[in-house]
Amino acid sequence: MNATVMSCTACKRREAFFFRPYSGQRLCKKCFVESVEEKVRATIAKYNMLNFNDKIAVAVSGGKDSISMLHILTKMERARPKASLVAVTIDEGIKGYRDEALEIASAECKKLGIAHYVFSFKQLFGFTLDELVEQKRRKGDEKLTACAYCGVLRRRALNVAAREVGANKIATAHTLDDEVQTILMNIFRGDLSRLAKEKPVTDEVHPKLVPFCEIPEKESALYAYLKKTKFQASPCPYASEALRNDFRSMLNQMEEKHAGTKFTVFNSLERLRPALQTIASNSHFDECVECGEPSSGGLCKVCELLKKMY
Amino acid sequence: MNATVMSCTACKRREAFFFRPYSGQRLCKKCFVESVEEKVRATIAKYNMLNFNDKIAVAVSGGKDSISMLHILTKMERARPKASLVAVTIDEGIKGYRDEALEIASAECKKLGIAHYVFSFKQLFGFTLDELVEQKRRKGDEKLTACAYCGVLRRRALNVAAREVGANKIATAHTLDDEVQTILMNIFRGDLSRLAKEKPVTDEVHPKLVPFCEIPEKESALYAYLKKTKFQASPCPYASEALRNDFRSMLNQMEEKHAGTKFTVFNSLERLRPALQTIASNSHFDECVECGEPSSGGLCKVCELLKKMY
Repeated sequence: MNATVMSCTACKRREAFFFRPYSGQRLCKKCFVESVEEKVRATIAKYNMLNFNDKIAVAVSGGKDSISMLHILTKMERARPKASLVAVTIDEGIKGYRDEALEIASAECKKLGIAHYVFSFKQLFGFTLDELVEQKRRKGDEKLTACAYCGVLRRRALNVAAREVGANKIATAHTLDDEVQTILMNIFRGDLSRLAKEKPVTDEVHPKLVPFCEIPEKESALYAYLKKTKFQASPCPYASEALRNDFRSMLNQMEEKHAGTKFTVFNSLERLRPALQTIASNSHFDECVECGEPSSGGLCKVCELLKKMY
Repeated sequence: MNATVMSCTACKRREAFFFRPYSGQRLCKKCFVESVEEKVRATIAKYNMLNFNDKIAVAVSGGKDSISMLHILTKMERARPKASLVAVTIDEGIKGYRDEALEIASAECKKLGIAHYVFSFKQLFGFTLDELVEQKRRKGDEKLTACAYCGVLRRRALNVAAREVGANKIATAHTLDDEVQTILMNIFRGDLSRLAKEKPVTDEVHPKLVPFCEIPEKESALYAYLKKTKFQASPCPYASEALRNDFRSMLNQMEEKHAGTKFTVFNSLERLRPALQTIASNSHFDECVECGEPSSGGLCKVCELLKKMY
């Protein structure tokens, strides 16, 4: 009895090892890797993410998605002599987690010959995330999760980092899964202003690009695995954002039953985008009255938070 | 030891029997009934659903929601001498289900002194839903669910019914739960044109009103129970629309964890509404080239379906 060997639907020669339910393709390792790289290239072109002379700060956490993205962007950048990229890592100060990720990020950058800069919460704001969480706990103020604070501070840290390294754009490695979870979270929270602002290329001073916005998380992980890159596999110890986890498992269930669901939701939002712009234009980026950094009006979220800290 | 009796947060006198998690209210039976009626009144006013001289065809299936709505609209109509309402029931021809519901609807209308008209698929289209499903099964054509056909035909039947009874508007008893499920289904299917068209008052020739769009299903059921009305409690034997059931249970889980979620999603959409209109205006209601009934262009869905039947 012979085992049936399915051949790759792309090259029609090599043995398939991956089935992509939403397209019906069976791909070999080589064609899978190429298809992910091609998709990222197509996404970058579709959303006009890059100009020939951009200097991009690539946000590298050390996780599978950012390491995969760093590999692909480095490859693309080599074909564009006037473009350049550097890697930046935000060190929130999470003991036993970020320190390990930092080492991985640093080693990967070295291997790729990419300059790597680290910016820490401690140096930028005067405290680590661990210290902030500890202080909140002592005060009995646990209204917001660590993730809520970290999100605000990390966003600011990335803006400062981009400015410091002379980059005009920031690339973050959110995947299709992250983007769709965020879309639903914004709808379920009724936060239409964020629904409008968060998109493949933001309207910020240093626009944020999301080159993996059309790459499912599963494929980003598989890419990293096939490329034999090292990455931080353990999740952040604070990662417990209940609502995001709910949507993650709900979306995975839906995708299981109806392949392509995540793409459909993502595309629904993109088709709503022109209409959403009318909302976004009412809530444009302004300057914080205290620090001058981008703010949606009055005091920015970081200054608000710092005022409460001291 | 005394059992703690909680008093109603509205009247502060009677014993509370219902806790409304999204508002924090504890209500007695009387105040609960009044609060539902008041909410329906407020919804009708907010969306400008009714004029003083409307003749409304109330779509009564015989289920808890439509019977509750009929009670409330009848009460409201009595206060408006120039308005009138009649009840219409669409008999899809589902043996062992619709026949029972029809009797209940008819008895409730009699009790309320409301004229009741029945329009059947058989009489309008030449076949019952049972016959259609049976024919599809024989042909091995089971691509679409019974619900998909029924939805198209019922919509048409309601329009014809409204015209026949001389009504200028149609009230349907979709609850907050139905509306939010539909919103998510349209997003997950990428059907933005329906997302834009389906709203508390539609732009059709006979506008459809949804006076219960801000009443949670649970409260509609409780209202029917407290009013001691009869209603058809067993579900439609064809009701197995997988996607809707998935969203129903997901939304109930979310609501359990974060009270008010359904309202937040509903309100998110309402706030998107003006932006969505730009999409809806590109997909306005047209006339079917064959039957002249409303259609989104070319042949209407009913004629499309009938062509396949014969």
